[in-house]
Amino acid sequence: MPNMIGLKCISCEREFSPEIIDYTCPNCGPLLGTLEVVYDFPAVKKILTREKLAQNRNMSQWRYLPILPINDPDKIQPLSVGWTPMYRSPSLENSLNLQRIWIKDDTRNPSGSLKDRASAIAVTRALEKGHKTVTAASSGNAAASLAAFGTLADLDTFIFVGNNTPKGKIAQLLLYGATVFKVNDSYDAAFDLCCQAAEKWGWYNRSTAINPYLGEGKKTAALEVCEQLDWQVPDYLFVSVGDACIFQGMWKGFKDFYEIGLIDRLPKMIGVQGEHSAPLVHAWETGAAQCEPLDAKTIADSICVGIPRDQIKALKAVRESGGRFISVTDGEMLSAISILARKAGILAEPGGAAPLAGLQKMASEGLCTDQDTAVVMVTGHGLKDIEGVLKAVDQKEILVENRLDEIASVINSG
Amino acid sequence: MPNMIGLKCISCEREFSPEIIDYTCPNCGPLLGTLEVVYDFPAVKKILTREKLAQNRNMSQWRYLPILPINDPDKIQPLSVGWTPMYRSPSLENSLNLQRIWIKDDTRNPSGSLKDRASAIAVTRALEKGHKTVTAASSGNAAASLAAFGTLADLDTFIFVGNNTPKGKIAQLLLYGATVFKVNDSYDAAFDLCCQAAEKWGWYNRSTAINPYLGEGKKTAALEVCEQLDWQVPDYLFVSVGDACIFQGMWKGFKDFYEIGLIDRLPKMIGVQGEHSAPLVHAWETGAAQCEPLDAKTIADSICVGIPRDQIKALKAVRESGGRFISVTDGEMLSAISILARKAGILAEPGGAAPLAGLQKMASEGLCTDQDTAVVMVTGHGLKDIEGVLKAVDQKEILVENRLDEIASVINSG
Repeated sequence: MPNMIGLKCISCEREFSPEIIDYTCPNCGPLLGTLEVVYDFPAVKKILTREKLAQNRNMSQWRYLPILPINDPDKIQPLSVGWTPMYRSPSLENSLNLQRIWIKDDTRNPSGSLKDRASAIAVTRALEKGHKTVTAASSGNAAASLAAFGTLADLDTFIFVGNNTPKGKIAQLLLYGATVFKVNDSYDAAFDLCCQAAEKWGWYNRSTAINPYLGEGKKTAALEVCEQLDWQVPDYLFVSVGDACIFQGMWKGFKDFYEIGLIDRLPKMIGVQGEHSAPLVHAWETGAAQCEPLDAKTIADSICVGIPRDQIKALKAVRESGGRFISVTDGEMLSAISILARKAGILAEPGGAAPLAGLQKMASEGLCTDQDTAVVMVTGHGLKDIEGVLKAVDQKEILVENRLDEIASVINSG
Repeated sequence: MPNMIGLKCISCEREFSPEIIDYTCPNCGPLLGTLEVVYDFPAVKKILTREKLAQNRNMSQWRYLPILPINDPDKIQPLSVGWTPMYRSPSLENSLNLQRIWIKDDTRNPSGSLKDRASAIAVTRALEKGHKTVTAASSGNAAASLAAFGTLADLDTFIFVGNNTPKGKIAQLLLYGATVFKVNDSYDAAFDLCCQAAEKWGWYNRSTAINPYLGEGKKTAALEVCEQLDWQVPDYLFVSVGDACIFQGMWKGFKDFYEIGLIDRLPKMIGVQGEHSAPLVHAWETGAAQCEPLDAKTIADSICVGIPRDQIKALKAVRESGGRFISVTDGEMLSAISILARKAGILAEPGGAAPLAGLQKMASEGLCTDQDTAVVMVTGHGLKDIEGVLKAVDQKEILVENRLDEIASVINSG
C-alpha cells in the first residue's frame, strides 16, 4: 500500500495506522467513528495522470490501483469488476424531457451490483491480513458479491441477511457456497448480529461502513464517471441510499480526483431514499447531526435501512457538495424500472431504479433543469428480484395454442 | 455495408444480393439453404489489423465493424454489447486437473446472454430496412435480447416462446415491453408459428439460422477470443448447442480472421448438447447429412431443441474443424453450474454451464489432455432461471432468530 498513509476518523479526525486498526475509531465508536483512508496525494499525482489513464488498457476498477488500499496486487481475484458502461439514451431523455442524462449501468458487474467493487477490495484485504473467514450483513447485494469473491479466494463465507431478501439474491449466495443465516428480523438487526459474530469468532467483517475499505471500492464508480465523461464533471450525481456507503464512497472518489488535480469541480450529490425508509432525508431536512432510527419499509430491499451505518460521512457529503436527500415512493420506483427497461434497455431492481425516480421528482419540482447534466447510478440488477420488478408491469404473457388464427385474433384486437 | 459483397447459400453455394434476399436460399429452402455473409476480404485486411485493434478503445463488438454486416452505424443502439471478460481461474483449473482453461463470460452482456450480439445486429438491420416490427421465436435468451434492443429502437416486438421458458426470461420480455406469445407447445413448434406470422404480417424475423446476420453477431465472440488470447488460438472451443447458431457463428468468426491473416490456425469446435436433446450428436456420430428431428428434453431450456435450425452449417463446422459433438446429462450440467459458481465466481444457467460439463467429460474420457488449451463459453446468466440453478445446490439458507447462541450452535455443529 505504498500510497496509503493512514485511516482518519470522520468525527474526531485522529489518524490511525491500518496495521493496528481494522474497523472504526476506538474513541468515537462504530457509528460516529467511521474511518476514511488517507493517501499520499503528491505521490499519487505523479503516477495517476490523464495521459497514463488514456493509455491504460486495464478496463476494470484496478486501473485506479495507485489510489486504492491494496498492498499486494497478486491477491486480487480474477473476476472483472468495474469499468461498467455509461450511456446517454435519446429515447430516455425524450421521455423525461431532460437533455443531458447519463446512465451508469453497474448491474453489469460480476454478481450484478455495484457492491462487487467493494467486495473485491475487502477480499483482497482479508487475504493480506491472513484471514480464512469473511462475513457480512447485507440486504443481499453486498452478500452476493462477497460470496462470489470469497469463494474464488477459497475463504469461508458467513452471510447474515434480513427477512426481506429476495429469492434471486439467496440463490446467488447458495450457489457461491456461502453459509447463509436468514435472521428472522430486519436487515438492521442482522447487521448487529453479524458484527457480534465477527467479533466473537474473529472473522473479517465486510459489513458496510464499519469497514473503511468498502467506500474505497465504491469510489471507483465516481472515478469512472469522470474518465468516461472525458473529465467533464456532471452537475448532479444521483445514487440510491440505504446505509449510504455507495453515496459517501462516490463523493470520496470525486474529492480524491479533485485533490490530485484530475478534475476541477465537484458534482452535487443527490441521495435517493424510499418514502418510508428515509432517515437521512429527515436528518438533512431538520439539520440534525445524526439520524433518528426508524422501522424501514420499502419494496426496494437494497435500501430498506432504518439505521444508515454510513450516516455521518453521508451527511457530510451532502452538505459539502451542496446536494440533498430526497425520497420517492414505491410506485415511483416501479415506474422508473419500467422507463429504464423500455427507454434505456436496462433491467434494474427497485433500489437500482430509485435514482432515476429521484431525478424525475427533482425535475418535476423545478429543483433541476433540462440544461443540468446528471449521472444516474443503476446499482443492482432486476433479475435478482423478479417478483419485485414484475410489479412494474401490467402486461402478462399471452397463452396461445399453436395456431396462426390465435395470433391473428390478438393482433387484430390490438 | 462497404465490405459485404453478398450472401452465399451453404448448400448450393449460389450467391444472392442482400438487397433482394433477406433470409434463406429460394432454391434450397429454410433448413438446407441457410445463407452465409461474404466479405471483400482484401479490403477488410487493409483496415482490420492487429495494430489498429490494439489502439481501438471501443470495448464492444463494434470494434469489428469492418467485418460486420452494418450499412449505417448511426442506427446502432447505445447498449454496450460484447467485449466480455475472459479469464483463467487457478481454482477452477486445480479442481478439474486441467491447466489451460479460459472461461469467456458472456453472461455479462446487457440482457445477460451471448444472444445480445446477434440482436444488436438484427435490430440495426431492421432499422436499415425500414421495418417497424421485429419478431423472434426463442427459448428465451434471444427473445430477451431482441426485446431489449427493439424497445430502444422504438420497434414493436412480438415474441414466441415455448412452454418451458423460465420465469426470469418472461419477466425480461414483459419489462422490455414486448408482446409475448407463450405457445402451448415446444420451442420447435413456436419457431414454425413465428415464421408463419412474420411472413403473414411482414415483420422482420430475428428467428435463428434463417436470418443470415445473426451468426455475424455471434462470431464476434470468436474474434474477441483471438484478440483476448493475444492471437494464440486455443486447441478447443466449447459451446453449448441448441439450434447451433452460436456454434456455427463462432466458427465463421475464426475462419474470417484466418482468411484475413489475423490468426494462423483454427480451433477444434466442440458442440455440447443435452443427453435427450442431442440430434446433432446423433447426426455426427452416424455421419448423416441432416438431423433426425426428435422430441427434446433437458433442464437447459436454452438448448432444448429437437430440430436444430442451423444444423447444416454446424455439421460443416464440426467436420471442417476436426471437432465433435458431445452430450451431457442434466446432472452433469448442474454439477458444472456449481463448479463455475464456486471456482470461477460465474453464475450460469444450465445451458450456459453445459460446455464446462462437456470439457469435463472429454477430459475424463481422455479425448483431451491437460496440455490442451480450451476456451469454454458461458452463454447465459443463472439469474434468468433461478429454479433451474437452485437444483445445483443441496444447501438452503438457515433460518435463525436474532440471537448469537443460534449462530453458535450452527458453527459448533459444523
